[in-house]
Amino acid sequence: MGKVATSEALRFMTDCLKAVGTATKAAQQQAELLIQADRMGHPSHGLNRLELYVNDIISGACCPNNEPKILKESASTAWVDANNVLGATASHFAMDIAVRKAKQTGVGWVTVKGSNHNGMAGWWAQKAADKGLIGMAFTNTSPLLAPTRSKKSALGTNPLSVVAPASKGETFYLDMATTAVAVGKIEMQMRKDEPIPSGWAQDPDGKETNDAQLAFNTGCLMPLGGGEKTSGYKGYGLAAMVELFCGISSGSNYGHHIRSWSHSGQGGPANLGHCFVAVDPECFAPGFGDRLTESMQHWRQLEPADPNLPVLAPGDKEKKAAQITDGKGTVSYVKQQIDSSAALAKRLKVKPMDVELD
Amino acid sequence: MGKVATSEALRFMTDCLKAVGTATKAAQQQAELLIQADRMGHPSHGLNRLELYVNDIISGACCPNNEPKILKESASTAWVDANNVLGATASHFAMDIAVRKAKQTGVGWVTVKGSNHNGMAGWWAQKAADKGLIGMAFTNTSPLLAPTRSKKSALGTNPLSVVAPASKGETFYLDMATTAVAVGKIEMQMRKDEPIPSGWAQDPDGKETNDAQLAFNTGCLMPLGGGEKTSGYKGYGLAAMVELFCGISSGSNYGHHIRSWSHSGQGGPANLGHCFVAVDPECFAPGFGDRLTESMQHWRQLEPADPNLPVLAPGDKEKKAAQITDGKGTVSYVKQQIDSSAALAKRLKVKPMDVELD
Repeated sequence: MGKVATSEALRFMTDCLKAVGTATKAAQQQAELLIQADRMGHPSHGLNRLELYVNDIISGACCPNNEPKILKESASTAWVDANNVLGATASHFAMDIAVRKAKQTGVGWVTVKGSNHNGMAGWWAQKAADKGLIGMAFTNTSPLLAPTRSKKSALGTNPLSVVAPASKGETFYLDMATTAVAVGKIEMQMRKDEPIPSGWAQDPDGKETNDAQLAFNTGCLMPLGGGEKTSGYKGYGLAAMVELFCGISSGSNYGHHIRSWSHSGQGGPANLGHCFVAVDPECFAPGFGDRLTESMQHWRQLEPADPNLPVLAPGDKEKKAAQITDGKGTVSYVKQQIDSSAALAKRLKVKPMDVELD
Repeated sequence: MGKVATSEALRFMTDCLKAVGTATKAAQQQAELLIQADRMGHPSHGLNRLELYVNDIISGACCPNNEPKILKESASTAWVDANNVLGATASHFAMDIAVRKAKQTGVGWVTVKGSNHNGMAGWWAQKAADKGLIGMAFTNTSPLLAPTRSKKSALGTNPLSVVAPASKGETFYLDMATTAVAVGKIEMQMRKDEPIPSGWAQDPDGKETNDAQLAFNTGCLMPLGGGEKTSGYKGYGLAAMVELFCGISSGSNYGHHIRSWSHSGQGGPANLGHCFVAVDPECFAPGFGDRLTESMQHWRQLEPADPNLPVLAPGDKEKKAAQITDGKGTVSYVKQQIDSSAALAKRLKVKPMDVELD
């Protein structure tokens, strides 16, 4: 493991994106998205993703200095062409529209085509919550999820996020893939040489497997809920719903038409689809924030089955991780990440990250 | 089992509701909601629920002849007080508003307080889809779901539904509880004296159980995803999200404040909360219906792990059940249901259902 000052990690990521031609603001916004994931304990969506973006820019698959534009709009909706910019640029542009429309009409619903990977969905929903609104963010992703009964994948991990401002400084924060787990969790079990639980992933014959190595090689995740007996078709339905809001609505690539997942920048523009929604809770019953906080406090105070594992409210894990990171002022990365970042610095002729090795 | 002409079951349910003082239109709408569930293969939400509604009317917990009203509205939202009418009356009223606003602004988002059990969520989302819109319906319900790590329940089965019109006569139809399964599935295993899969329900100590009888007596369902290892906290988060859209937004009862589940009519007004959303896909990329149909066809053609179990698109099961029912012109009920309906007919002095026993 290595420790890096949070500001230094942000500097490094910004520099790498600028080194491949990204204008300063776009580079900063993308780096900010990544550092938030590292800060909140989701390293898979942080610095770990930088090289994917860099490679897409180098190959021309992503054009970070283009301008997104509105193709069509109504009082409460907009259809946006991201014009192949970075995911953060597209997502700021679109969520700003959703927030503005929600302030005017109560709801803003924006779909985006022609976009790129936009990182942690919760970061975008949070943007609306920061303005006092219920924020939602959805995105499609490369195919990895096998529909219930299928041998092959046909949908992405298709995350959904809902973030809402509560009273007394509380925030409801839900950010989840619609697969049971992300590929990263299988990778971790494989490295520890431990089995994976049933319901995470399939073998090449479409059967549930407990073999982490086989699951990783197959790359066929099961939907939330696992197998059919435990209602995995609901997770499949949710992934399909996210696709309906994203690619099917926006006209981007969708489902099985999305390029396969790689960090190589190959396969041409990703042309991903997103959906951003903002809803003003002031349009409904007074006391929204108080009821939300009372609920979250109630859930935390429920008697746990295991006294060592208290019940959490949605977002408590992320909040705690962020507090710890902010207290230390540093983020920690595994050695492999430190090494690949050093190699990237060399390749791009960027000042390497200043790392304090443990 | 007993067979009943679909029109006769509808007649019987309407008569029972009228016998306890419900005006004709409200009785018909509630009966129509129930027969749709029987027709689509979800008998738990059909005739099976009639007695609950009847008892609530007799006890005064539900006032079927009140009028729902709009308390507040904006261009794209409305806050409705159902004024304690039947769930179907409240839901027609609210979804009609959502549809009207979606036609005007692109989106309609309506929350409802003071309502009663509104049956199969998909029926309400379908109402918007019938008008060419993406329809969504959410409702809170009595506490039955144990948040991840908790010994006790604190949220309902909180269903969500998304229905969307596709081309070539296809419809995307997702209607799912956010628990792994409904109580009815546990009851069925108990009657067959068979165990339940892990991930369905807890024992009184908050541990996963395979004992159907114990699970049924405990009444503590696990969220979609099951235990913590298989990401049950995502199902818990989804149930909480549904509550955020329903009770927390509308100011109805919410979560642990909702009366416990019973058919007795005790516990006073349910004061449930719903949320209805309609979105006009015409506001986004042309070709929405074609992309949706192409996706659904692609999913069905995926190679299945078991050649005898073809991959389904969301809603295929319900569509097939409805086709079979419509082909026969009859719905089938288990003996227990036939007997309790006969007893209800006697109690309410209503003409009993004309049943053809197998």
